[in-house]
Amino acid sequence: MTTSVPADSAPRACDLLVRADAIITQDDDRRVLTGAAVAIGDDLVLEVGDYADLDARYDAAQRLDMSGKMLLPGLVNGHTHLPMTLLRGFADDLPLMEWLEGHIWPVEAQLDEDLLGIGARLGCAELIRTGCTAFLNGYFHEYVTGDAASNCGLRAVLGEGFFAFPSPFFPTAEACWETIRTLEARFRDDPLVRTAVTPHAAFTVPPEDLAASFELAEALDIPWQTHLAESPAETAVCLGKYGMRPVEILRKEGLLSPRVTLHHCVDVTDGEILQLAASGTNVVHNPASNLKLCSGMSPVQKMLDAGVNVGLGTDGASSNNQLNMFRDMGLAALIGKVRHEDASAVNAGTALDMATRHSARCLGWPELGRIEAGFPADMIALDLSSPNLMPVFNHVSHAVYAATGMEVCMTMVAGEVLYLYGEFRTLDVSGLRKEALRCSKWVRSVSGK
Amino acid sequence: MTTSVPADSAPRACDLLVRADAIITQDDDRRVLTGAAVAIGDDLVLEVGDYADLDARYDAAQRLDMSGKMLLPGLVNGHTHLPMTLLRGFADDLPLMEWLEGHIWPVEAQLDEDLLGIGARLGCAELIRTGCTAFLNGYFHEYVTGDAASNCGLRAVLGEGFFAFPSPFFPTAEACWETIRTLEARFRDDPLVRTAVTPHAAFTVPPEDLAASFELAEALDIPWQTHLAESPAETAVCLGKYGMRPVEILRKEGLLSPRVTLHHCVDVTDGEILQLAASGTNVVHNPASNLKLCSGMSPVQKMLDAGVNVGLGTDGASSNNQLNMFRDMGLAALIGKVRHEDASAVNAGTALDMATRHSARCLGWPELGRIEAGFPADMIALDLSSPNLMPVFNHVSHAVYAATGMEVCMTMVAGEVLYLYGEFRTLDVSGLRKEALRCSKWVRSVSGK
Ligand SMILES: [Zn+2]
Ligand SMILES: [Zn+2]
Repeated sequence: MTTSVPADSAPRACDLLVRADAIITQDDDRRVLTGAAVAIGDDLVLEVGDYADLDARYDAAQRLDMSGKMLLPGLVNGHTHLPMTLLRGFADDLPLMEWLEGHIWPVEAQLDEDLLGIGARLGCAELIRTGCTAFLNGYFHEYVTGDAASNCGLRAVLGEGFFAFPSPFFPTAEACWETIRTLEARFRDDPLVRTAVTPHAAFTVPPEDLAASFELAEALDIPWQTHLAESPAETAVCLGKYGMRPVEILRKEGLLSPRVTLHHCVDVTDGEILQLAASGTNVVHNPASNLKLCSGMSPVQKMLDAGVNVGLGTDGASSNNQLNMFRDMGLAALIGKVRHEDASAVNAGTALDMATRHSARCLGWPELGRIEAGFPADMIALDLSSPNLMPVFNHVSHAVYAATGMEVCMTMVAGEVLYLYGEFRTLDVSGLRKEALRCSKWVRSVSGK
Repeated sequence: MTTSVPADSAPRACDLLVRADAIITQDDDRRVLTGAAVAIGDDLVLEVGDYADLDARYDAAQRLDMSGKMLLPGLVNGHTHLPMTLLRGFADDLPLMEWLEGHIWPVEAQLDEDLLGIGARLGCAELIRTGCTAFLNGYFHEYVTGDAASNCGLRAVLGEGFFAFPSPFFPTAEACWETIRTLEARFRDDPLVRTAVTPHAAFTVPPEDLAASFELAEALDIPWQTHLAESPAETAVCLGKYGMRPVEILRKEGLLSPRVTLHHCVDVTDGEILQLAASGTNVVHNPASNLKLCSGMSPVQKMLDAGVNVGLGTDGASSNNQLNMFRDMGLAALIGKVRHEDASAVNAGTALDMATRHSARCLGWPELGRIEAGFPADMIALDLSSPNLMPVFNHVSHAVYAATGMEVCMTMVAGEVLYLYGEFRTLDVSGLRKEALRCSKWVRSVSGK
């Protein structure tokens, strides 16, 4: 199973050797190794294999003994809005449009960068705690989230949000494009942070601006992402405004391509699914948010069967209300069955693929989402001594159906341990709690609630 | 808000005074108190109120400072099968009948009491860890689960399962009734453990045995509970066998009453819902299990609106795959919205009611599920410093939508602390892990997997 070298060869140096009861590799063969280890050098995995074998062949500067734990690739959150963590639980049990227009947007209009930074750091803390190592973010003043991610060691793809022009943030389209160019340049040399072009949605951004923004994404050679087909209500708005359904609007503008990721795709027809597949367009499924806002249940298995790459996201904490990829993995698998009237739909392996390899492709970062030689050393450990993870028959089943996400006891990005046994190494979480308290008072005061 | 006494009166003695940032009381007014405390004497709550006030008026033998935490009533699991924890993750992604007949029943037929006890204790560990303080269990050799619950300090209602007679366990109906009478007598003086009569289902137990078992429940004055209307497939079987839908079978036998709790009720008509309401029959909703086995989504809000008392359960760990009431609370609220096409359906307060007061009524133990003077001192604490619980706008929203259940840092039943900050006081969890390993090897060997 592992690359062998002659027994008399000199040990190979590595920075870190991590031992674990099991490793869910998510490699091309979806191997699950037991009694295994990972050797890490710089920010990459050097080798994955049998512990005794790697132990004999590597001279490790450091060792991390994760006996009683299982390793899996860091989960990749395909769609979130980190600063909205400030509004977690602020307005619940409302439909999408009423929730946005009556509650979220009025408060968001008053947020400054200081507050956004607190929300972003709060979100980073939860991502690290629950085993997410990379995320696609969409919001305003995206450099704030970029700085938060970079400072705490998480990978992020930043999407500066925009609506029809002129908007409160951008008097013209060109002003927006300039902000995105500046954002991309700011993080170009940061190995953890990338940029995407992310118009809000087809019902809030006119087709010509969607098309112009796609040209920018092509020019910068970065991903293009937007909310699409989130609910039948959105479809009705698009039909009323343009006489076209959301996917049709994109197709007419030439905006279906492997560069594109569409967030949600709840209300898509069979014909549209074939168009998404044929064009190589990616989709991110956000089950918790779709359920909570009563948007519906996306035909995930149907899209996967058609050949669409479907990743997984949490959406923002104000519509989830968690940023916990384990929760959304479990939800994807559970509701996938009733959605497709098939108990074998969205099985455990599929849900884990969505949260790892598929989401990685959605981010335009396909080398993420696996533990494999030559790939980035982004991985997490789940503590198998948690009562809800006993006994073990199938490690993948436990990751998807039995884990809450709080069993994560180690989170590593690019070979750096960000969290270990309750200790956040790159974030001051008790300080964050005080800042969260200040923010909640501010939100209450501006909202009059 | 709290009962006042003259300032010069002597302090009142109590065993324990628990201070917390907030208390979700689940009293009749659903009060949520901040800066609050609970005074406990013996196994009851003496008073709930403002911390400074109670601090001044009580002379507490012990104090528990849960600053930075919120208290809520211990959650009540209305339907589970604890020994099946042994089969967690053993067979996934299968429909109900194939899962039962092809995978679960063949292994169950070979379980002995030693193995059942391990499964029951594993289940108790997870319940305690995730804040459940009372549960309704259905399985074989129920005294085993009764002993497990009693020994670790959890409340349980035991339901000895039975099918058509003769069965491998019971040659005759009378032999079964005698076992139930013996079970009831065995735990009659145990304040934590009660007994119910629990035929498996209307498609596996003939109507005359259902009726006879109900007479036994009446004679012993204990609850009567059964799986019912779990899926359209079950309805089809009942129609084929008896020419009646599941609820009709019960109604014809006179088995709809406040003594009755029906587990699942996924496939019920509007007319049947009215019959359940008019008769005072209780229902337990098990969203994770219903989704995983592709049984469907129960019309919970419709039943509640009709006046049915609907509690919440996890079902067994082999079809969930957790025994985590927080997970099922969140699921009930999330899928309730798409099931009823209404984003306000099964709101946070409703989901919490289901998991506390409503489930308590289903157990025939209506004094559980609240933190209130004169009621049992069953309560749990959630650590508000967990990143996913920041900031706080609405404590009930956090309990339902943001908590995973692993934020539980204290679990108390009848005034006894069973779990505190990672320490299980009544269970040897590391010993359990070794036993779980032995069990998983046994299951693999008998199943040939
Ligand atoms: Zn979104
Ligand atoms: Zn059941």
